[in-house]
Amino acid sequence: MKNTLGTSVCVTLFGESHGAKIGAVLDGLAPGIPVDESLIARQLELRRPAGSISTARREQDAFEIVSGVFEGKTTGTPLAILIPNADTRSGDYRRGALRPGHADYTAHVKYHGFEDYRGGGHFSGRITAALTAAGAVAVGALRAKGIRIGTHILRCAGIGDAPFTDPDTQIDLLNDKIFAVLDETKGAEMRAAVEAAAKAGDSVGGVLETMVTGLPAGVGEPWFDTLESMLAHGLFAIPAVKGVEFGDGFALADRKGSEANDAFALRDGKTVTKTNHNGGINGGISNGMPLCFRCAVKPTPSIALPQDSVNAEGTREETLTLTGRHDPAIVHRARVVADSVTALVLCDALALRYGTDWLRAEVSE
Amino acid sequence: MKNTLGTSVCVTLFGESHGAKIGAVLDGLAPGIPVDESLIARQLELRRPAGSISTARREQDAFEIVSGVFEGKTTGTPLAILIPNADTRSGDYRRGALRPGHADYTAHVKYHGFEDYRGGGHFSGRITAALTAAGAVAVGALRAKGIRIGTHILRCAGIGDAPFTDPDTQIDLLNDKIFAVLDETKGAEMRAAVEAAAKAGDSVGGVLETMVTGLPAGVGEPWFDTLESMLAHGLFAIPAVKGVEFGDGFALADRKGSEANDAFALRDGKTVTKTNHNGGINGGISNGMPLCFRCAVKPTPSIALPQDSVNAEGTREETLTLTGRHDPAIVHRARVVADSVTALVLCDALALRYGTDWLRAEVSE
Amino acid sequence: MKNTLGTSVCVTLFGESHGAKIGAVLDGLAPGIPVDESLIARQLELRRPAGSISTARREQDAFEIVSGVFEGKTTGTPLAILIPNADTRSGDYRRGALRPGHADYTAHVKYHGFEDYRGGGHFSGRITAALTAAGAVAVGALRAKGIRIGTHILRCAGIGDAPFTDPDTQIDLLNDKIFAVLDETKGAEMRAAVEAAAKAGDSVGGVLETMVTGLPAGVGEPWFDTLESMLAHGLFAIPAVKGVEFGDGFALADRKGSEANDAFALRDGKTVTKTNHNGGINGGISNGMPLCFRCAVKPTPSIALPQDSVNAEGTREETLTLTGRHDPAIVHRARVVADSVTALVLCDALALRYGTDWLRAEVSE
Amino acid sequence: MKNTLGTSVCVTLFGESHGAKIGAVLDGLAPGIPVDESLIARQLELRRPAGSISTARREQDAFEIVSGVFEGKTTGTPLAILIPNADTRSGDYRRGALRPGHADYTAHVKYHGFEDYRGGGHFSGRITAALTAAGAVAVGALRAKGIRIGTHILRCAGIGDAPFTDPDTQIDLLNDKIFAVLDETKGAEMRAAVEAAAKAGDSVGGVLETMVTGLPAGVGEPWFDTLESMLAHGLFAIPAVKGVEFGDGFALADRKGSEANDAFALRDGKTVTKTNHNGGINGGISNGMPLCFRCAVKPTPSIALPQDSVNAEGTREETLTLTGRHDPAIVHRARVVADSVTALVLCDALALRYGTDWLRAEVSE
Repeated sequence: MKNTLGTSVCVTLFGESHGAKIGAVLDGLAPGIPVDESLIARQLELRRPAGSISTARREQDAFEIVSGVFEGKTTGTPLAILIPNADTRSGDYRRGALRPGHADYTAHVKYHGFEDYRGGGHFSGRITAALTAAGAVAVGALRAKGIRIGTHILRCAGIGDAPFTDPDTQIDLLNDKIFAVLDETKGAEMRAAVEAAAKAGDSVGGVLETMVTGLPAGVGEPWFDTLESMLAHGLFAIPAVKGVEFGDGFALADRKGSEANDAFALRDGKTVTKTNHNGGINGGISNGMPLCFRCAVKPTPSIALPQDSVNAEGTREETLTLTGRHDPAIVHRARVVADSVTALVLCDALALRYGTDWLRAEVSE
Repeated sequence: MKNTLGTSVCVTLFGESHGAKIGAVLDGLAPGIPVDESLIARQLELRRPAGSISTARREQDAFEIVSGVFEGKTTGTPLAILIPNADTRSGDYRRGALRPGHADYTAHVKYHGFEDYRGGGHFSGRITAALTAAGAVAVGALRAKGIRIGTHILRCAGIGDAPFTDPDTQIDLLNDKIFAVLDETKGAEMRAAVEAAAKAGDSVGGVLETMVTGLPAGVGEPWFDTLESMLAHGLFAIPAVKGVEFGDGFALADRKGSEANDAFALRDGKTVTKTNHNGGINGGISNGMPLCFRCAVKPTPSIALPQDSVNAEGTREETLTLTGRHDPAIVHRARVVADSVTALVLCDALALRYGTDWLRAEVSE
Repeated sequence: MKNTLGTSVCVTLFGESHGAKIGAVLDGLAPGIPVDESLIARQLELRRPAGSISTARREQDAFEIVSGVFEGKTTGTPLAILIPNADTRSGDYRRGALRPGHADYTAHVKYHGFEDYRGGGHFSGRITAALTAAGAVAVGALRAKGIRIGTHILRCAGIGDAPFTDPDTQIDLLNDKIFAVLDETKGAEMRAAVEAAAKAGDSVGGVLETMVTGLPAGVGEPWFDTLESMLAHGLFAIPAVKGVEFGDGFALADRKGSEANDAFALRDGKTVTKTNHNGGINGGISNGMPLCFRCAVKPTPSIALPQDSVNAEGTREETLTLTGRHDPAIVHRARVVADSVTALVLCDALALRYGTDWLRAEVSE
Repeated sequence: MKNTLGTSVCVTLFGESHGAKIGAVLDGLAPGIPVDESLIARQLELRRPAGSISTARREQDAFEIVSGVFEGKTTGTPLAILIPNADTRSGDYRRGALRPGHADYTAHVKYHGFEDYRGGGHFSGRITAALTAAGAVAVGALRAKGIRIGTHILRCAGIGDAPFTDPDTQIDLLNDKIFAVLDETKGAEMRAAVEAAAKAGDSVGGVLETMVTGLPAGVGEPWFDTLESMLAHGLFAIPAVKGVEFGDGFALADRKGSEANDAFALRDGKTVTKTNHNGGINGGISNGMPLCFRCAVKPTPSIALPQDSVNAEGTREETLTLTGRHDPAIVHRARVVADSVTALVLCDALALRYGTDWLRAEVSE
């Protein structure tokens, strides 16, 4: 089940950049969960290109839920969301030289030339609109259970944002922002750097940092469905993500055990850890502390600068100069995609642990 | 299928640190693959504790293959490997205070106190012996098809090894070493640092870097079973791994697109990339260049220094002082586990792509 | 993955009887397979209600392929087919007394009253239109490889059809018929019996018998993905199917081993069996003989006769008298659904065995 | 995951008829379930050959649980059971002519001659001992929740047993019997017929009928994981099972809707059906009535009479005369295997529906 993520709650994606419609099927979610179309619209808005630091392609993302919702609530059967592709300009794309950093070459090898190459086809970041729409339903379901997800742009174009200091409050603030930073001054610097790169015909990358609060302890499996494994599985499917780390991640490699362990304490009769170097996961299982992880997002491969390349048939070296509309950065748009994947994976893990009704039930376990 | 990894070729693990036996079931491998017991023994030796930088627990790892091999070759039906636990000293373990950085707390929440807590039970790194034994069969199968895997200790205790310069040659050298470094001088420094940490009652972490050569282009799926997703799923199940990155990984976040894209060229009529910043994967699919990724391994959580903790019942704060035998570092032992997971995931991905006979067939596609 | 069938080639269904659209996502099919829209239309026609022996509901089944097909061929990425629901009359349905033999009660328990109850919602036979459309693509792919599927109405309303005598020829004949019988005289008797039942406000059931020719030997697994297991898994999801048997099935129970075994012989240098009591499967694996199985289809539960029932809340016994449009028999319509499930399962089994390119390749193994 | 059954609770089988050990790994079961070794021993005894109507091969089935049980209860982590093969006489088996009705030919095609052919290898009914041992743990877990499973030999050698009249009482009686019939007179006739067949060098088949009481309503999925689909998937993996039907099954095909529907009524404030033609399942989901299904078991393919055959290489027709020890009937031994599969599938379906703790919890939902 290649284009499907999840076991008990799962999502299936379909569509191409220049096809008629893209879409997602979300299956296994509890019945009776209110589906807030304005939240879906808002999440899609967070993903849409914004001003001078994004592609000029404009999609209304006029989604349509064609199944799985009845009288405003989930039915418990598959929820399908369709999004038409309106503003396609296929003329901008011809099967030309392979675009470095893209899937053109690997798609050509895997699909023997039958792939829809226009705009990257099924590999296009466009497909993340469907993932975001489905994810929004999961985000809403988790919020109703007190589980909240927030992501900020920890780094962009080499500029660092302020760290999380008060996740519970900051998650709400971030979810209101198109360009999700904790320090707006740093955010302005990042945007300026993106614009500068765009002017130079180049692009920039960044790092996303996600926090989840309210997740119960005891979710995940020792081998092989650790919570890290399940989350990383979904996160690495986001285009341009090339690294995922939990807690202090790679920084832990240079630490001593005494600096990496999270000592236990009792707070209001509850077992907590004094620090959170492990990002809320021990032995693959949530420990009740905030979940914390980071995704490395490589710079958008579509750049205006000329690049050395080869034709698809592999018979001729060519210089590629891309035209068309492209993003000089996607890290700010990928933010809501990371939230979506996180929400979908957590809904799955929670349903596996507590059963398919848990997300609906009034009271948490 | 929580303790199972894979779809077409898959491995299931069982056992506890202080149980009678641990083991693995490897299913779906092609028939007719020679099973080299000396390679299994050798891989287990690479995983076993070594001298003063490892736990004093000594296991012979006298594995027994009880099914799936007939006249020295795989039958194509499930191959089960058992490894008895010989040198257990359960007296060293009592259900005491929760060990920080371990799964004691999360296991207690998830399993309600019914978990076998002795030596970490099913969460113990001991289980990786079974994973390594199964992985050795996969490693051997891939080698016969010209696909070779090698991992070195890129960092340990803050000391860096030399980078890969000639993977094809270096992979063989690494696979002969108990402490897998490319620069032996650096390796000596690392071992000294581990010993120093051990003397101080502390532990250290590190980073593993893995290279795979000979993998055909076209393996992996766009959503959600990208090759990165499949590999990360397995790698994050290795105890202590808290980060995984492909190609230049997190370093890509600070790059320009023009510095991150891998330009295409023709070499001997074959499409290649001039650089390998993307680690051999584009759009989730292998591109025929060497696969390259890194795993962050946190310092061993078992340290001799006193630590703040809480009892399992969550009723009392306690100071924990660990006795028993422990590893001041596991990064060098985790190396062969990373190779094993890599081999198992690749066998699965190849079988899904080319069918279940591919690993056996004389000629590659 | 509850509403998904398959591992390497898989189909996901969504939609409700009275929702905006129903649909299917078909994933994992090889690239380069010609998609014949007229075959899809034809298969949908075979499923559509026919004259006086079917419901008066008329759907044009104007399907739309929104992804996965490019220039008339599969791309290898997910193929999504949408079918709008046009002729819905929701007014005919209110949440009244539970309909015996339907899923009203079980849906109400499982989904706590949040299910879309109109026309059976997601449980409606209407959803099989999407399954048939997706199945048609699989049917076409298999035909191109010489694997042909045909089903006849072995029994209906207690009247038996003639048996298969020459499957290769008869499969083509059957696939041209709306009411698929081998003996037209018997078919006329069946239709008369269905009409008589309809007039009496009642309904009838039947048995479908399916033959598959051209399937290679060696497909299926010993435990637990036997070919029988995989096929039965799909077939039992067809509404109203309450029994599945392979080869001589239940009749084997009363036989001697000497009467049930299929003796081997050589024919043109090929190992064949002289009889086919085992329906082309030994030990869960295809043996190269025609695959043969039967599905018991219960009479349509929607009948006009008054029935004893209970309201959904379980507070009051009521007499139920159904209005609305209903089928006095569905066995003739279920025929193409059985073919569709068979084709989808076989595509999956073949892709797992021979790789994802096999269905595309010019030459068979 | 070919040799694995289940999603949340799953079982993996390994071993060959003449290998060192066979075994099963049972994963996903709730922690804290008492594991009664005497129940496992008893279930294995029910599967073992009995007197003159079974093979002369005698295995003690001295099982060993090597993981997943701690202080007499499940830990929640994988439970591995090993059973040594003691009484093997490999000399009785050589790779001779293909045995009709067995998997010799299909295994040879699938595994290219690398299969362990001795005694059927991995295809041997011997493997069901491991399945029965794992199933016994599931049977025990369900009993503690008030869910009870019983199977009788509905037919054997053409002789019919009495029908179930009072399942709750009769299930207990059946579970005490080696030869599980409700009418002992009929049972004696069956055994005599088996002995007569054995003397004639032949074998007989039969039908098993299973009842499950106490299963809650609301378990199963509409598409494609219907409860029928999940159960049939497992049941068709039992060697020799060639048909599965639920409720009145194939008999429903000749009924009117008015004779097949189960009218609803209120009994003690609970919604029940007055009849149970649908076997406790509507729309793929349990309805709270007893689950009822039947399995057709073909006659044992191993018979002493000479049979037409072919050598494995497919170069020569031969007459096969089997020596060795064989069962003239297996339907009585397959009974406990059907119970085991049923228990495992139900544990899985329940864990998916209500979460992984449900089987442990004191109170049912």
